Amino acid sequence: MFDFHIDATSGPARAGTLTLPHGTVETPVFMPVGTQGTVRTLSPADLRAAGATLVLANTYHLHVRPGERVVETLGGLHRFMGWDRPLLTDSGGYQVFSLQGFRRVDEDGVDFQSHVDGSRRRLTPERATEIQWTLGADVAMAFDHVVPGGADASVARDALERTLRWLERCAKRHEELRPGGQTLWPILQGGTHLALREEGLRRICDMHPWTGLAIGGLSVGEPKPAMYEVLERLEPRLPPAVPRYLMGVGFPEDLVAAVERGIDLFDCVAPTRNGRNGSAFTPDGPVNIRNAEHREDPRPLDATCDCETCTTFSRGYLRHLFVAEELLGLRLLSLHNVRFLIRLASEMRAAIRRSAFGPWAAEWRRRYLHPGTA
Amino acid sequence: MFDFHIDATSGPARAGTLTLPHGTVETPVFMPVGTQGTVRTLSPADLRAAGATLVLANTYHLHVRPGERVVETLGGLHRFMGWDRPLLTDSGGYQVFSLQGFRRVDEDGVDFQSHVDGSRRRLTPERATEIQWTLGADVAMAFDHVVPGGADASVARDALERTLRWLERCAKRHEELRPGGQTLWPILQGGTHLALREEGLRRICDMHPWTGLAIGGLSVGEPKPAMYEVLERLEPRLPPAVPRYLMGVGFPEDLVAAVERGIDLFDCVAPTRNGRNGSAFTPDGPVNIRNAEHREDPRPLDATCDCETCTTFSRGYLRHLFVAEELLGLRLLSLHNVRFLIRLASEMRAAIRRSAFGPWAAEWRRRYLHPGTA
Repeated sequence: MFDFHIDATSGPARAGTLTLPHGTVETPVFMPVGTQGTVRTLSPADLRAAGATLVLANTYHLHVRPGERVVETLGGLHRFMGWDRPLLTDSGGYQVFSLQGFRRVDEDGVDFQSHVDGSRRRLTPERATEIQWTLGADVAMAFDHVVPGGADASVARDALERTLRWLERCAKRHEELRPGGQTLWPILQGGTHLALREEGLRRICDMHPWTGLAIGGLSVGEPKPAMYEVLERLEPRLPPAVPRYLMGVGFPEDLVAAVERGIDLFDCVAPTRNGRNGSAFTPDGPVNIRNAEHREDPRPLDATCDCETCTTFSRGYLRHLFVAEELLGLRLLSLHNVRFLIRLASEMRAAIRRSAFGPWAAEWRRRYLHPGTA
Repeated sequence: MFDFHIDATSGPARAGTLTLPHGTVETPVFMPVGTQGTVRTLSPADLRAAGATLVLANTYHLHVRPGERVVETLGGLHRFMGWDRPLLTDSGGYQVFSLQGFRRVDEDGVDFQSHVDGSRRRLTPERATEIQWTLGADVAMAFDHVVPGGADASVARDALERTLRWLERCAKRHEELRPGGQTLWPILQGGTHLALREEGLRRICDMHPWTGLAIGGLSVGEPKPAMYEVLERLEPRLPPAVPRYLMGVGFPEDLVAAVERGIDLFDCVAPTRNGRNGSAFTPDGPVNIRNAEHREDPRPLDATCDCETCTTFSRGYLRHLFVAEELLGLRLLSLHNVRFLIRLASEMRAAIRRSAFGPWAAEWRRRYLHPGTA
C-alpha cells in the first residue's frame, strides 16, 4: 500500500512513482496546502482540474477548529474535504513553533495557546500522532521541534535531539494504533548546521525503515544559499529508495533548485497566498495583475498555461476583478498558480525522463529569472 | 434574432422560449446578477453548471469601473466576462437613484457621484443607451427614474412621466445606433399606484412594438401585498406575446408568487448576497449554515439538489468553512442558492406545462413556508 519506485534519474534529480492508499503520485510533485481542510478559494474539482494528486492539510488548524472528533464524525478528512486522492497531514510542530504568543516546551511536549480562542492546549508526540490517525490522511508526519533559520548550533542541537526522541515516541504510538491506511514519515531538523544535519539523517535512518523522509527547518528565514548547501550535503547521504519531502518549499525557482538536489515532494502556501495578493507565476517571472499596464491587455496571464483562468480570461479582466475587489479574482489567480507549480513539476519529471534535467533547468531559469533576454 | 414563443400556460402562469442572439432561454427564468461583470464568487463554468442561461450585468458599475471603453477594447461584455450565453444589462437608472450622496435630476438626465472615486458623472437616456450598446449585451434596458416604494402619487406621476419621455429618447438613440445584436426593453414605473401603472403600461405599449417589457420600481421597500396587487392589476393588461421581466425580484416565495401573476423573468442579488452571509435556500425554507446545530451534520445542505455543493459536502463541512472564514464557503453557498432558483424556475416551467401550476405552487408553499407540517 506504500511504495516508491524510481522511474528515471538525471544527475541527482529523480522521477518516481509514489503509491499511497488513495492513489498514485508521480514525482516530483507539488502539494497544494489545505490549511483548514480547504485549499484557500479552491474546490476539490478545481484541484483535480489543476492536476493535484496529493494535498496537505494542517493538523494544528484542524485540531483547534473544528477538532479532529468533528472531522471523524463527518467521515474522516477525505470525506470531510471532499477529496478522494492522497492526503498528507503535517504534525502541528511547525505551527506550534511559529505561533505568536504563549508557548512552553518541555521534554514531554509543548503547551501553547489556540490562535482561535486563546485556550491553553498541549501537543505531545503521542497526541500529534493520535490526532493524525483520527484525521486519517495517507501520510502522517512526526511531531518535531522547529527552530528559526538563524538558530545557533547549540539551539539547533537541542531541537534535533528532542525531535529524534520525539520521533521514537511518534513511531511507537503509530505502531500501537496500527492504522493500516496510514504511514508515518520522520522530519530531519538541524538548522543550517551541516554536521548536525548529517548526524540527524544517519540516526533517523538507523532507527527504522521509513517509507519516506522529510527535511524540515529550511525555508524558515535562512539565506537561500544556506538551504542549497544543506541539500547538497544531504543528497548523497539520503536513502535512495524513499521519497524525499522538502517541507514548506516553495517558489518556482526553489522547486527547480531542490529537484536538482534530489528532492521529490514539496508543499507551500505561496501559490494561493500570492494569488490572493494578485501575484501570478508565469514562465517569464511573476506578474502583479494589479499593475495599470494590464488594464486593457487582452492576453491571457500565461499563454503557455491550460488552466481555466488562462484559457478563459484576459489580463484586463483579471485586473478588473482585483481592482473591483471581486472574490473571483482571488480564486482565478490561486488556481493558475497551483496549476503553474503542478505543471512545473510535470515538466521537471519529463526532463528527468529524457535525462536532460540540467539543460532544461538552465533554459527554464534563463526565461524565468531574466525574461526578455535572448 | 429576438423572438418569444409561449409554450404553455396554466392560469396566468406562462412557460415560454425566448430567443436571443447568444442563445435560447426557457422561461420562467432566473438571471444571476453579475454586478461588476462577475456573478460574485462564481465563474462562468459554475454558472453553466448551475444551469444559468441569461445573466445580468450592471451598466452603472461597469461604466464607473473599468469603463465601457475598456470592456470594448477587451472584446465586449461577453468576451470580457467569459460568458457566451445571453446577457442583459440594466440601464443604470436603479443604481443612480439608489446611490447615497449627491444626485440631481433634470429633464435631460441625472448628475451623480461615482461611488468608486467620488467623481461627478452624468447619465442621460442617450448616454445610458450608448454605454449599453458599447457593452453589447443581448438585451439593453431603457433609462428610468426610480422612486422609493412609499412615494406618493405626485412623485410617482412625475417619475413615470419622465421615464416615458426618457423611453422615447432611449428608443430613438437605440434606433440610430442600429445595434443588430441588441434589443431595447422599456421599464414601467408608477410605484404602487394602480391607475398610474395602468396608464404607464398603455402608453408604453402604444409607443412601439417592444420585444420585451420590464416592471420596475417594485421590491423597493413597499409591502409585499402592494407588489402583488400591482402585478394582479397589470397581468390581464400586459401584451401576451412579449416576455415580462420583474426587476430585482427575488426570493423563492416571490418568484412563485410572480409567476402565478404572469411574470417570466427575474433577477436578484439575493442568492449570492445571502450565500455570502451563510444563508441557504432549501425546499424546507432558508437555513443559516453558521448555526451550531450543523456542526456534526453529515447531511447535504439540500438533499434534493444536484449542485456541486450538495453532492460533495456535508452541512458540517460547510459550517466549518464559514466559522473558519474560508472563502470557499461563500462560493459554495452562492452556487447552491443560484442553482436553487434556477431549479425552482425549471420546476415552475414543468408544472405550467402539466397545466398544474396552482396545485404545484400550493404544495411548494406548504413545504417552504411551513416545513415539518404534514
